[in-house]
Amino acid sequence: MSELSRITETPVPTVKYYLREGLLPPGRRTSPNQAQYDDEHVRRIRLIRALLGPGGLDVATAREVIAAIDSDLPLPHVFGVAQRAASVRVDDRAVDAAALERVDALLDGFAIHPENPGRIAAAAVLEAFDAVGQRNADDWSRRYVEAALIVAEADLDTVERRVTRDEKAETVVVGTALGDALFAALRRAAQEHVSTTRYEPERADEIRRARSTP
Amino acid sequence: MSELSRITETPVPTVKYYLREGLLPPGRRTSPNQAQYDDEHVRRIRLIRALLGPGGLDVATAREVIAAIDSDLPLPHVFGVAQRAASVRVDDRAVDAAALERVDALLDGFAIHPENPGRIAAAAVLEAFDAVGQRNADDWSRRYVEAALIVAEADLDTVERRVTRDEKAETVVVGTALGDALFAALRRAAQEHVSTTRYEPERADEIRRARSTP
Repeated sequence: MSELSRITETPVPTVKYYLREGLLPPGRRTSPNQAQYDDEHVRRIRLIRALLGPGGLDVATAREVIAAIDSDLPLPHVFGVAQRAASVRVDDRAVDAAALERVDALLDGFAIHPENPGRIAAAAVLEAFDAVGQRNADDWSRRYVEAALIVAEADLDTVERRVTRDEKAETVVVGTALGDALFAALRRAAQEHVSTTRYEPERADEIRRARSTP
Repeated sequence: MSELSRITETPVPTVKYYLREGLLPPGRRTSPNQAQYDDEHVRRIRLIRALLGPGGLDVATAREVIAAIDSDLPLPHVFGVAQRAASVRVDDRAVDAAALERVDALLDGFAIHPENPGRIAAAAVLEAFDAVGQRNADDWSRRYVEAALIVAEADLDTVERRVTRDEKAETVVVGTALGDALFAALRRAAQEHVSTTRYEPERADEIRRARSTP
């Protein structure tokens, strides 16, 4: 246990918490006070930390997606579980039909089921955007669709590069959860970049230099 | 108050809560038990609901970005406040130098300050991705950068279309907070679409039909 803690740089109480919460499988008991842990435990702890940290999942949701990795569910099912788990925090209970129609027009030609969680969440966001009197949301969101396709192709390519079913399943889960955070982060960097080059082009070079000479 | 509640479809206790939390400015008092509210209050309640709902902000953060709208801060500052507020939930306290270098290579030529919240959060995500043994993260994240630029251009264009400083400031705040949710939603739709057309092309048409014939 203490070695597991050392290798993964995770405090012992945290490791115990993962065990108690069923996120981490128990070690092989070698005596009443000793258990043996192996490389799988190390990998699993790193996965848990990624999901609970940057992945933004809560413990119950992390348990769910880990169970999907450990199951023998086919990959598209794992994708479904990950999509619903690392889901957009949007109240989609009362999305109205008009908003769904707008999303369907936006996703014209997409081979997705009506219950795709993204379809419904996107409708809820467009509804909220409308409610605050934002116009031109259609042009805005069309360009978001273009970007989302680039990201989805990159996501699927990353999964394809893994070899075994378990590796692929893990990449599906990690990529879905961490991809949102990565994109949101890069969007913020891109916003500052685009804003600077548009509105203060004379300062762009100076700002670039500040970063390249630490 | 009851009319304000009716028009905005927001329960009276919720409106009172917004007042108490300083999210909504008080109405003009017309008698000890009466206050007058106007269109600005209607607009503000819709904004609060968008930020706390799909925007995913907590009350303190929503208060902060609303204060930025109401201030006379120049637009780039409002952008900064919104970026930090609607921020990526990533623990970036211990991001190591190597991860920051990777992000800087990824964002080569970007005119961003070293303390851009997205730069640091992206480093934290790449670090987490590495820790779980994912390879090829560089190709993956390069394509994310490409997509983030498309989205950032769309974001800035949407702000430019608004006329007054206050409208622009509101769009900055709403767009930053809701844009993350919109993108995450569309990414899920795009993932299902790309996955179906790649792996089950023979089912794609049937799935498309299910959505177009409600």
